[in-house]
Amino acid sequence: MLKLSIIKIGGNVINNPSELDGFLKSLSSLKGPKIIVHGGGVLATELANQLNIETKFIGGRRITSEEMLRVAVMVYAGWINKTIVAKLQSFGINAIGLCGADGGIIRCTKRSSTPNDYGFVGDLIEGSINTDSLKSLIDSGFVPVLSAITHDGYGQLLNTNADTIARGIATEMEASTGTKTRLIYVFDKLGVLRDISDDKSLIKRMSQAEYEELKAKGIIFEGMIPKLDNAFSAIESGVSEVILQHSSKIGTDIGTILY
Amino acid sequence: MLKLSIIKIGGNVINNPSELDGFLKSLSSLKGPKIIVHGGGVLATELANQLNIETKFIGGRRITSEEMLRVAVMVYAGWINKTIVAKLQSFGINAIGLCGADGGIIRCTKRSSTPNDYGFVGDLIEGSINTDSLKSLIDSGFVPVLSAITHDGYGQLLNTNADTIARGIATEMEASTGTKTRLIYVFDKLGVLRDISDDKSLIKRMSQAEYEELKAKGIIFEGMIPKLDNAFSAIESGVSEVILQHSSKIGTDIGTILY
Repeated sequence: MLKLSIIKIGGNVINNPSELDGFLKSLSSLKGPKIIVHGGGVLATELANQLNIETKFIGGRRITSEEMLRVAVMVYAGWINKTIVAKLQSFGINAIGLCGADGGIIRCTKRSSTPNDYGFVGDLIEGSINTDSLKSLIDSGFVPVLSAITHDGYGQLLNTNADTIARGIATEMEASTGTKTRLIYVFDKLGVLRDISDDKSLIKRMSQAEYEELKAKGIIFEGMIPKLDNAFSAIESGVSEVILQHSSKIGTDIGTILY
Repeated sequence: MLKLSIIKIGGNVINNPSELDGFLKSLSSLKGPKIIVHGGGVLATELANQLNIETKFIGGRRITSEEMLRVAVMVYAGWINKTIVAKLQSFGINAIGLCGADGGIIRCTKRSSTPNDYGFVGDLIEGSINTDSLKSLIDSGFVPVLSAITHDGYGQLLNTNADTIARGIATEMEASTGTKTRLIYVFDKLGVLRDISDDKSLIKRMSQAEYEELKAKGIIFEGMIPKLDNAFSAIESGVSEVILQHSSKIGTDIGTILY
């Protein structure tokens, strides 16, 4: 198998139809097998608001109530997933849209309800990823497009963090196939910038030690921290290459490569 | 390949959680490869009502506006599809939930807007079914679960009749694989009854000529007519076996076999 690319896109791409189109088109220029993982964007919150479903948070984290789970499944695994697939098909990419329940691809455990009950949230454990299912789809020429909905194996759907899914797939696919994996986190910026308003300040390569230093200096802050923690944990668990890049740079090396 | 079963379920099963569970469990007793096709049930109408989306009809047929298409995709390809898949996985069936855009499985043409504009409705044409995609999934051990959402190949999702999809798949899979296909329409009754209130009046086998006779006598009427017309057209186009049966009788020969 050629190098496998796992590309994670989030709300910044999904909420912007013209950027999404550009990104999906650019995927044809990315050689080799690929898996796309997508999050949700603002649509789920919008639909919940329209349905008067109250969004509850604990410490800034959203609680997935039964009603909110249904909204997440409808929006992520339904509307967003199928919209992406139909577009990719029109660009000649043989996309197949899935959630983690399909083909038993991602089996999670429901997060413990103590000390905080986050509701129907699933966490990945070792062995959560069914690499055989993914491999047989890729070998058949499909490009899996995965929404961040998983299941527990007992019939319960669960909401799961898309960044974590992308990392889990990259890690387990590299471990089980023995071929190199490139994990791409699509960013709203060119990559990690020393000065957020200046594209020329792009950090082209960053080690974990350099990251810790930049964090200590306050150059990397807020929302970037959980993203980079997650990205570095992929490196630690054996993913060959992790890159943070803008959707318009897919297929190039322009971005921040972690090592 | 062993005989392939294509099983179509509709609102009567989907709207009733305990019947749906019983049906999904009983699928394990149905030997050989299978494909499940599902319609929508009342959930899409309920969601449209909650969102104040007006349901418009022409001559009793619903119009799929842009807003209604989004609802259909969310409910059929999202919530219902993934709920079925998660349950099947818990019963040890390696289900994979798809719509017609996934893997390019069903490519339809948008229905002409003259004389009546039904909106985003797709019709099957010859060659609409990508039997290679379906075969490779079945050969990999997956049980495809198809929602009645298709695409036009140019990025547009379309709402399509689930009975017609089931018939199209049965016809084209039988023609392309050369192996016998059994098309099962799951009914709320045991099958076609001479007396709707008496299960003992079940018609076990029915030819097209017998159907025409029963229709002329008014014994078969209303909603049964389009269903049976569709079912007989599968026989005409070369499907070996078409059976109308209750969800609790899956895996048996109890029902109405058309020939």
